[in-house]
Amino acid sequence: MYVTCTTHQQVADVIRNMVVRGAPAIGVAAAMGIALGVKNSKAETDADLKKDFDQICETIRQTRPTAVNLFWAIRRMTEKFETLRACVRPIAQIKQTLIEEARRMHAEDIAANQAMGRHGATLMPSSGGVLTHCNAGALATAGYGTALGVIRAAVEAGKKIHVYADETRPFLQGSRLTAWELMKDGIPTTVISDNMAGVMMQQGKIGAIVVGADRIAANGDVANKIGTYTVAVLAKEHGIPFYVAAPISTVDLATPDGGKIPIEQRTAREVTHIAGKQMVPDGVQVENPAFDVTPAKYVAAIITERGIARAPYTESLRQLSEASSKLT
Amino acid sequence: MYVTCTTHQQVADVIRNMVVRGAPAIGVAAAMGIALGVKNSKAETDADLKKDFDQICETIRQTRPTAVNLFWAIRRMTEKFETLRACVRPIAQIKQTLIEEARRMHAEDIAANQAMGRHGATLMPSSGGVLTHCNAGALATAGYGTALGVIRAAVEAGKKIHVYADETRPFLQGSRLTAWELMKDGIPTTVISDNMAGVMMQQGKIGAIVVGADRIAANGDVANKIGTYTVAVLAKEHGIPFYVAAPISTVDLATPDGGKIPIEQRTAREVTHIAGKQMVPDGVQVENPAFDVTPAKYVAAIITERGIARAPYTESLRQLSEASSKLT
Repeated sequence: MYVTCTTHQQVADVIRNMVVRGAPAIGVAAAMGIALGVKNSKAETDADLKKDFDQICETIRQTRPTAVNLFWAIRRMTEKFETLRACVRPIAQIKQTLIEEARRMHAEDIAANQAMGRHGATLMPSSGGVLTHCNAGALATAGYGTALGVIRAAVEAGKKIHVYADETRPFLQGSRLTAWELMKDGIPTTVISDNMAGVMMQQGKIGAIVVGADRIAANGDVANKIGTYTVAVLAKEHGIPFYVAAPISTVDLATPDGGKIPIEQRTAREVTHIAGKQMVPDGVQVENPAFDVTPAKYVAAIITERGIARAPYTESLRQLSEASSKLT
Repeated sequence: MYVTCTTHQQVADVIRNMVVRGAPAIGVAAAMGIALGVKNSKAETDADLKKDFDQICETIRQTRPTAVNLFWAIRRMTEKFETLRACVRPIAQIKQTLIEEARRMHAEDIAANQAMGRHGATLMPSSGGVLTHCNAGALATAGYGTALGVIRAAVEAGKKIHVYADETRPFLQGSRLTAWELMKDGIPTTVISDNMAGVMMQQGKIGAIVVGADRIAANGDVANKIGTYTVAVLAKEHGIPFYVAAPISTVDLATPDGGKIPIEQRTAREVTHIAGKQMVPDGVQVENPAFDVTPAKYVAAIITERGIARAPYTESLRQLSEASSKLT
């Protein structure tokens, strides 16, 4: 099923309701939403357009707090908008240029994923099991994927990888999205309940782990889908390398460490109800943090489109962030 | 909903289909099933009764492989049966005595749980969060519970415990059973997806962990519901004590270590479908081990009705197993 949005409010709704999810996809959708909102604006003066623009950005901003790509996209579109205003461009041209900018961000994200894939594929084992959590694939990005991009590139390079996909409760992105993507690509995949990741590692079935990220702090702490931290602890216990694949736009140098990353709490219903059926009795409390933070010490490497960052991350991430994207 | 069984085949079915689940409950149900089968027997000679008895035991034996209480119950009922035959008791008396033996096992299990509760309550924190996995409560035993018995006894002793219940995919015993039991008892409970256990520990919300067991090997390795091993690894990483509560009938001295415990693989459908809805696309593989093995080194103590076993478990478990149950 495809959902078509014709207003920026609709784009905000699909981000909030996780029809579009995954940090890079949220970033690109936000940029598209802003371009769409500006295109729909009836403003005839610069001042009115500026008012509309700010309101559009605020609507998009209020959707989800954790994935930094949302705020990165808003900032980039705002910078472009202010540059155009500073040059006193006509409104029609501003609208057209913002649409082009959003499209460029879409294309850049695909290219970034492919570059991440090239870098990350070298870290994957030549054969055997690779575990991933949640969905960091084409359905979480503009295309190709971050963590799944690394796996795709490794398979394209001839590596014989069998993917173990955590089902990823409560939203089941592993069962519903990752398994679907990999099945379409013909990459052998086994879905497991999150509870089974430990025993798969204990049995020696997992040679590496690769996940995406929703925000990476300056020190390398990684916010990602709830349960990622558990996977990282299990990886450490079993001596399995735990890799994170994310575009530079997910690295947030303004956030010094993971403790400063806002973690979205979602509705209890995602835990209490599955497929519309109530599983938890009334009167029982529920927690539903959508993300957790994996401290940098658990992360073997962070794979970006500009290269691979290793500890100490404060230096390596800053260097990659400041590097020209042309270096890739 | 209550399910009434009138034949031993029906008892075997409810064990196989997890209508009755939880190692101690399986043990008591197996004994009741054998008593029921013998009661229904039309045998008029000792030889025919023996043939029926063996066939009844075999039907019960073929249900589930991991919980040792099943085999313990069959062995105990067999010993009683053979003693009665050796004394050349009339068939009516054999039937009646086997019914009494099964009822005694039911009463003993409740008493064992209450004794476990008294011992284990001393290990619980005076206040704060205690995490449990799966359901090791009244619904997994003849009543009161093993892990939940420890929590109940601690609360009865005035400790201010807040339970964190892992929902426990794929069968959701935490959401459906543990939450329901504790809600009925008025013990504050928060249900979390299994993926959230790590972050709850990271945030300092969990002071202790207590779970049940399906089989404990002679060296203290613990087979329990899938995901228990992950919880134990997380506990170690956070310096939180990880306790196992189980009756002596769950300790299997004939199994030297966890590697020798047979692990039941259940149908893929428990993972692929939730509430009847398909979540995993066709053509994707699934694993569904019902249990995992937590090595003894992760276990802070094993709480039995005869007292608390500590490492080295090979000695402490043997001592408790050989001790008279009258010591409690």
